[in-house]
Amino acid sequence: MHTPAAKVSGYVVLMIVQIIFLVLFWLFVRYEKTVLPLAIDAEDAGSANEHVSKYPQFQDIQVMIFIGFGFLMTFLRKYGYSATGFTLFMAALVVQWAVLMKGFLHMEGGRISLSLENIIDADIAAAVPLISMGALLGRTTPIQLLCMSIFEVALFAANEYLALHVLSICDCGGSITVHAFGAYFGLAVALMLRPAGDQNEAGKLEGASYTSDIFAMIGTTFLWVYWPSFNSVLADGAGGERAILNTFLSLAAATVTTFVVSALVSHENKLDMVHVQNSTLAGGVAVGTVCNLLLGAHGAVLIGIIAGTVSVLGYRYLTPWMTANLRLHDTCGVHNLHGMPALISAIASAIYASMATVGEYQSELQDIFPAMVGSNGTETKIMGGLGRNATSQAGYQLFGIAVTLLIAIGGGILTGGALKYASFRNLKKDEHHQDEHYWEVPAAESKEEYLNMLAKLLDDDAAASNSNSQSAANFNWRPFLLRNWNAIVPANNLYVRGALH
Amino acid sequence: MHTPAAKVSGYVVLMIVQIIFLVLFWLFVRYEKTVLPLAIDAEDAGSANEHVSKYPQFQDIQVMIFIGFGFLMTFLRKYGYSATGFTLFMAALVVQWAVLMKGFLHMEGGRISLSLENIIDADIAAAVPLISMGALLGRTTPIQLLCMSIFEVALFAANEYLALHVLSICDCGGSITVHAFGAYFGLAVALMLRPAGDQNEAGKLEGASYTSDIFAMIGTTFLWVYWPSFNSVLADGAGGERAILNTFLSLAAATVTTFVVSALVSHENKLDMVHVQNSTLAGGVAVGTVCNLLLGAHGAVLIGIIAGTVSVLGYRYLTPWMTANLRLHDTCGVHNLHGMPALISAIASAIYASMATVGEYQSELQDIFPAMVGSNGTETKIMGGLGRNATSQAGYQLFGIAVTLLIAIGGGILTGGALKYASFRNLKKDEHHQDEHYWEVPAAESKEEYLNMLAKLLDDDAAASNSNSQSAANFNWRPFLLRNWNAIVPANNLYVRGALH
Amino acid sequence: MHTPAAKVSGYVVLMIVQIIFLVLFWLFVRYEKTVLPLAIDAEDAGSANEHVSKYPQFQDIQVMIFIGFGFLMTFLRKYGYSATGFTLFMAALVVQWAVLMKGFLHMEGGRISLSLENIIDADIAAAVPLISMGALLGRTTPIQLLCMSIFEVALFAANEYLALHVLSICDCGGSITVHAFGAYFGLAVALMLRPAGDQNEAGKLEGASYTSDIFAMIGTTFLWVYWPSFNSVLADGAGGERAILNTFLSLAAATVTTFVVSALVSHENKLDMVHVQNSTLAGGVAVGTVCNLLLGAHGAVLIGIIAGTVSVLGYRYLTPWMTANLRLHDTCGVHNLHGMPALISAIASAIYASMATVGEYQSELQDIFPAMVGSNGTETKIMGGLGRNATSQAGYQLFGIAVTLLIAIGGGILTGGALKYASFRNLKKDEHHQDEHYWEVPAAESKEEYLNMLAKLLDDDAAASNSNSQSAANFNWRPFLLRNWNAIVPANNLYVRGALH
Repeated sequence: MHTPAAKVSGYVVLMIVQIIFLVLFWLFVRYEKTVLPLAIDAEDAGSANEHVSKYPQFQDIQVMIFIGFGFLMTFLRKYGYSATGFTLFMAALVVQWAVLMKGFLHMEGGRISLSLENIIDADIAAAVPLISMGALLGRTTPIQLLCMSIFEVALFAANEYLALHVLSICDCGGSITVHAFGAYFGLAVALMLRPAGDQNEAGKLEGASYTSDIFAMIGTTFLWVYWPSFNSVLADGAGGERAILNTFLSLAAATVTTFVVSALVSHENKLDMVHVQNSTLAGGVAVGTVCNLLLGAHGAVLIGIIAGTVSVLGYRYLTPWMTANLRLHDTCGVHNLHGMPALISAIASAIYASMATVGEYQSELQDIFPAMVGSNGTETKIMGGLGRNATSQAGYQLFGIAVTLLIAIGGGILTGGALKYASFRNLKKDEHHQDEHYWEVPAAESKEEYLNMLAKLLDDDAAASNSNSQSAANFNWRPFLLRNWNAIVPANNLYVRGALH
Repeated sequence: MHTPAAKVSGYVVLMIVQIIFLVLFWLFVRYEKTVLPLAIDAEDAGSANEHVSKYPQFQDIQVMIFIGFGFLMTFLRKYGYSATGFTLFMAALVVQWAVLMKGFLHMEGGRISLSLENIIDADIAAAVPLISMGALLGRTTPIQLLCMSIFEVALFAANEYLALHVLSICDCGGSITVHAFGAYFGLAVALMLRPAGDQNEAGKLEGASYTSDIFAMIGTTFLWVYWPSFNSVLADGAGGERAILNTFLSLAAATVTTFVVSALVSHENKLDMVHVQNSTLAGGVAVGTVCNLLLGAHGAVLIGIIAGTVSVLGYRYLTPWMTANLRLHDTCGVHNLHGMPALISAIASAIYASMATVGEYQSELQDIFPAMVGSNGTETKIMGGLGRNATSQAGYQLFGIAVTLLIAIGGGILTGGALKYASFRNLKKDEHHQDEHYWEVPAAESKEEYLNMLAKLLDDDAAASNSNSQSAANFNWRPFLLRNWNAIVPANNLYVRGALH
Repeated sequence: MHTPAAKVSGYVVLMIVQIIFLVLFWLFVRYEKTVLPLAIDAEDAGSANEHVSKYPQFQDIQVMIFIGFGFLMTFLRKYGYSATGFTLFMAALVVQWAVLMKGFLHMEGGRISLSLENIIDADIAAAVPLISMGALLGRTTPIQLLCMSIFEVALFAANEYLALHVLSICDCGGSITVHAFGAYFGLAVALMLRPAGDQNEAGKLEGASYTSDIFAMIGTTFLWVYWPSFNSVLADGAGGERAILNTFLSLAAATVTTFVVSALVSHENKLDMVHVQNSTLAGGVAVGTVCNLLLGAHGAVLIGIIAGTVSVLGYRYLTPWMTANLRLHDTCGVHNLHGMPALISAIASAIYASMATVGEYQSELQDIFPAMVGSNGTETKIMGGLGRNATSQAGYQLFGIAVTLLIAIGGGILTGGALKYASFRNLKKDEHHQDEHYWEVPAAESKEEYLNMLAKLLDDDAAASNSNSQSAANFNWRPFLLRNWNAIVPANNLYVRGALH
């Protein structure tokens, strides 16, 4: 399966998937009533405007998914086409699939109602396989990634339904259902695809260049700036404003902490771009599940400090340990940016839930902890019934993260096994972390051109400059260059592609 | 006209244009009434807020114009200053001119009323010459580009007025009036500026570098993400929400299709960045004219699949054919991103118009197809009168695109002729696609510095290392480097500017 | 203090500052009432929505602070990690501090009320030390920068309170309180840190590379696009819409003017990226203080033309003069982008204030010039009392900028003195403008690797190719490379880090 034919069949399968989506849209999806024209004699209900009031936040999330995730992963010096390109490819496929999958779980009369809400949900769902992609970055083919994302999003939709509508946990910013799920699913896939014991060293291109690190900062800063929109988009009113404030403060505190801890634990006390690019964002994950609760500014800042610290220490100590001992390569360190901070968020949600009272949350209690109020005629089947007390709700929060981890890891192991043993092509070690196996890369031609031109010039010079020095004139440059250049270039991949372009 | 004096006179003309704009603003433009302070005893009419509700979408469009277009064109490896800089220059000039030109067509009492709507329209108008610039990228002087944009925007405003207010076609996202007009105008100019038959090969710098391709992805992703705002900004209520949904789904489907088709038709089945950067956006263009219609999700997805396919095939087969046979160089392939997808959109609009019924569109019919309802006292003079049936409206849609093509191509030929034969400086072949003729570029000094320093070091070494080898010691490096370096550098422009910076 | 120990103690101090912030948040900050849940029986007051209506503009400002400022400063070829990273670090620290400092000045009942307004204000405050950072870029340690920002923001909050609430000047877009303050504070610090007379030449890395200049354009374009949000965020209703329109037109006119004047005054009439990156934005600063006034489109365009001209001439003539004569190095030219345009804005505000009448401003007069109306029961203590006439208000506008300059320059001198003479580490001349003293930079290893590998290959070749040429075979490459490479690389820092990555 290592031939172009393998590629072709993989891409053809993806085209068939796209056409199946088309058919499913045709069969099942219809505009929601408020997206249809009003009857001529109707009065304006204004409900379309209500959806559209979320539009600016939706656009912020779009930037996070397509630009934030894409550029954050450009930090590898020879994998920038893949980072930005496969993000676009995967997100474009997944958003369609998520509209369908999440729609099937909420059908009315055999129809999925389409409105702005559906594509907001779809963008959030797209974050899930993009997080997993971070754990695998550079070690899979695009076909493997895309197939993984299709399985993963279906499982994510099921788990989210279970957590929010059956277990009835709170998870406003999605740290449990999105971040923990995506991170541990991806890590489980990475574990299944782990290298043989004698191939466990880092890939020769598994590192940043000066330029690629700055490209990655585009991703970091856009994720940072728009994270409050991600966390608050599904909250309303005062809860939505609290989600914005708490996320902002937690990010700020995590960022300051990240810089300090990075300097304290790094080699020669120099700051490490990996920490700055990733751990600064851990505050947004760690506050996610609880962002609409009454944390107070100090609660948000404290969560940010803890998240920044844990994340940097994870990059510095835990990730190398996992690589060495489990052969678990986590290219982007999603365990430190998404995994552990999401666990912190789940624990925080249990703590805050255990203290929640109706006196404090008043009218918002039924939005935030619907299982804690009496029956309100909801159709959702809540496990354990309504009228939970605070301690019980706290228990369900922990149960929710446990179930999510179980499903994510189980699903990841199955998916990783399928990617490894089914008829997918697997990359060989020396194909890792480079674009050129799946992309036309400019250098290929230029190297040849440059070599030929340089050899010709040097030979001409040798011929012309007899008066210069008989020894240099006798030096035949072409074979020297041909021998050495060809040896140098594949050996480090630095010179031609880095230097000539 | 090839001297600095020519540059000076060109820039002075542009300054005079700016001062003329100042005078025209002073004579004709006044704040709209709702932008003025309320009388002290007035009740708040709330209409200022109505404008301002479009502000977030306006900002999205600003990003598309200034960042999206600018960075999309940075893909050329030595034309990044021009791509980002001239985009800024052109857009800043054109938005002022568009406020005036479009204002003159809608004056009331000899005054142009200024509100947020005017600058939204101006930003949309700025897209038109930026699209044309894509067809010419790297083969004109900035003076030619700017002068072209002034003519083009005036003609665009006239054509748009004709299409929307006289022919009364629907064109919600502007695929006919903006994309088709900009693309075919630019192609007509490119045809007039086509090279002599013996100079038809690609420019030696007409290609991407690894870094420049990633810069271009900044443009692609921001255009992708904010395209729903471009298409929906002029629609209201449910139509606006449909425009968002349809554009989003069409983009997603076009993106998946682009990746698949790119892999299937490219060399060794590798993905081509040109397709990824451009054809992924074709879904946004192809759905533009019809984005607020009742396409259904499947209609939007189908349009996206068609657009992605046509666009990639255009890049792969049609553009090389046009270059070889018509000497029509379309640097960015605007024919594939804007031209053909806009034709698809026009055809789709005729199909959907032919099926439009009042039972389906209800109260929105008069907004979307105003000529299909009875007289409503509008002052616009609609060709053929009111009360059109659906078939007739479909015919007008096709008439609208035909008239637009005629005016765009005719105007482009005239403008291209003026740019070629009037007293403009024309770039010579070897000046194409490089910044250094119009920009101070860091390399200019560094090359000299580096050469001198290297020669000195090598000579010193030769002198100092007598004990090393008599032959190397005798080798006189400076003349060797001077002879060859000067030959290498201008010949490929790769080494110094790519490598030293 | 030049040891890692100095770094450690600096970072530890910053961590202590973060923990003090945590304590202060806990003691003093509480959610504003509208951010709390409504009582179960209350009616929805809708005031939370009122805050949240500013959210899209807040997000635009977030992009300006974290991406705009950060990337604008990446223009230095070896300072991109610091530009983007320290911007993030500083802004994350300052926003927390600004919530507290500005909160202390507006406490109610010993409590700071937290809502979206506070973090909008905090983002605006973050601009102040980022502007000052521009004047110092590359010539301080991060510890110095961060400590400076803490002092500066406290002083900024006091000066802003004085200008707006005691002197009661108008300053809608903050050109006086933000831009002038930040610029002159930074310049005063730069003056205190000026080099000895024999070290006044430009740093060897104080320049752009081709790639770094394009990264900087990311900053420029985002600042350009979102500047209307910065200027209008604190205005409401019609005044807010005028702020958007005036800022947009002023930016457009300044941009056209910048390109023209740059070409006219630059070497060989080539455009200068420094001007394009910075002076295009001067229109946003120069219109800031007056952006919500009744300037008319022509007023805004005129201000833009003046600002663009002054800013480019400042870069071309004044900055080199200040460097040569005052040893005042202004790395980013903040005097030309923020300083002088803010003075223009202050003068414009005096002119427009002197013409303001109640007949013109109607109901908005009390919002814009509150001191010009009779007592309205405001608690603010306005200097000179209420009922000012227009001439008097004009005088206060000039008094406001004078006081701001005095406080900024005085504060800057004190702060600069502290940074120079207190126990901070100061950078040595040859440490300027490079990341590698505070960041782990990829090149460090690769240079070594590359050198070793190349030497080995060349030696092997020499050994293997006896048949080639006896002279080349005798040439011992390793010592040659070691001698020269080590000399070349530290001398210009161009080759290894620029080329190999």
